[in-house]
Amino acid sequence: MSGIRRLCLTVAYDGTAYAGWQVQPHGITVQQTLEEAIGRIAGAEVKLHGSGRTDQGVHARGQVAHVDLAHPIRPADLMKALNAILPVDIRVLRSRVVAPDFHARRSAAGKEYRYFIWNGDVVPPFVRLYRAHVRRPLDVAAMREAARLLCGGHDFGAFTANPNRVVESTVRTVTRLDVTRRGAEVVIRAEADGFLYRMVRSLAGWLIRVGEGAVEPAATRDILDSRERTARVPTAPPQGLFLWRVWYPPRRRSTRP
Amino acid sequence: MSGIRRLCLTVAYDGTAYAGWQVQPHGITVQQTLEEAIGRIAGAEVKLHGSGRTDQGVHARGQVAHVDLAHPIRPADLMKALNAILPVDIRVLRSRVVAPDFHARRSAAGKEYRYFIWNGDVVPPFVRLYRAHVRRPLDVAAMREAARLLCGGHDFGAFTANPNRVVESTVRTVTRLDVTRRGAEVVIRAEADGFLYRMVRSLAGWLIRVGEGAVEPAATRDILDSRERTARVPTAPPQGLFLWRVWYPPRRRSTRP
Repeated sequence: MSGIRRLCLTVAYDGTAYAGWQVQPHGITVQQTLEEAIGRIAGAEVKLHGSGRTDQGVHARGQVAHVDLAHPIRPADLMKALNAILPVDIRVLRSRVVAPDFHARRSAAGKEYRYFIWNGDVVPPFVRLYRAHVRRPLDVAAMREAARLLCGGHDFGAFTANPNRVVESTVRTVTRLDVTRRGAEVVIRAEADGFLYRMVRSLAGWLIRVGEGAVEPAATRDILDSRERTARVPTAPPQGLFLWRVWYPPRRRSTRP
Repeated sequence: MSGIRRLCLTVAYDGTAYAGWQVQPHGITVQQTLEEAIGRIAGAEVKLHGSGRTDQGVHARGQVAHVDLAHPIRPADLMKALNAILPVDIRVLRSRVVAPDFHARRSAAGKEYRYFIWNGDVVPPFVRLYRAHVRRPLDVAAMREAARLLCGGHDFGAFTANPNRVVESTVRTVTRLDVTRRGAEVVIRAEADGFLYRMVRSLAGWLIRVGEGAVEPAATRDILDSRERTARVPTAPPQGLFLWRVWYPPRRRSTRP
């Protein structure tokens, strides 16, 4: 018995003050802040693996990440200790031991993102960091029509801002894309087996254009078919976006007798 | 016709970055920020009169203030111009011309404050600036019992943190004081014809002590009767408090024929 356990953390963060999730040379990131805090508690350098990156200014309600620890701390105590030393804009919501072959990114079966729009003249100060501001009244019915065309398995090459890394497939299956309004608040919910780089902000950018009446919902088909990112698809601003949840297949039974 | 009009503004602000509402020697205040912005638009120094002060770190969803302007700008245009130059944590929600004898503080018939508590282990990062954190599970039924004893006309001398200014009467009529829970969120709503200095935070501090089981609801009567502020009534932290709305008597008919 090596004593090394794999722990899985569910993390919420306000992305406003961070240069995104992933460690990078410039700016403080969420991953780095968490790795340093875990390292202080575990008394060793650790590497945290997230389910995926979030861009600068993007928030998470349910980011999932795993880490291998030799330290025998109980998961609940780790969570408590982390929340005691982490800045208040990062919170650990859950902590548990997982199988050694669990991988926060590779094991993920799907993800949900939500994009929040304030569709009114004046954004209330209390949500200013968590909403994209769209002044022109959005036609939610038109947005839904466009969203329906985006559901299902498609090549989303036209909806990613990553033209230099076309090694991977750009085919993804969107299992849900809906648009709801409550007063001035318009919310886009997107679920898929996985998302390409900047895909949700590109889908949101396109749906906002449709909602503003700048393009017809039916034009969505042409954009999809083009499989090429052009200026017709804008990237919606980061502060409206939340990584909402990540889900994993039910735990396999042990193959040992 | 002098051309001077009295304008009434409804203002929302995130109090986090401000040294309260009222202009004071140290720190930037909301009043000062608004006066400077209105002054820039009107091309003259102006004096803004609020319905009352809010402490450092306290928020407002519906602060009301009036200002006299010689500049002929339309109220709707003033609002737009203000929101274009104000910092995003202060927003003007409404702007209208009022009678010359309207006074934001003296004409007020009543006010509502709301106090928001996060009653759980971990405060979500997105509400951290707008909730007081209480870890111990609150007994909302006990809080309601205490709240009932505080409703009505009373001398609230025990619930103000202003022992040096006992010139004014400390009698106020609380027309509503209720406590509700939705999940981890506990909200105290307080309506009265007026509030003493730090009265809502004192009522909240007391109700939280009751909810934590530190004192019996019935002890509320003794505290009220004492009419004297002691350490038994703590002042709840500012970030949970919102000045929710201020209301005014229906406009009198003109007495002119």
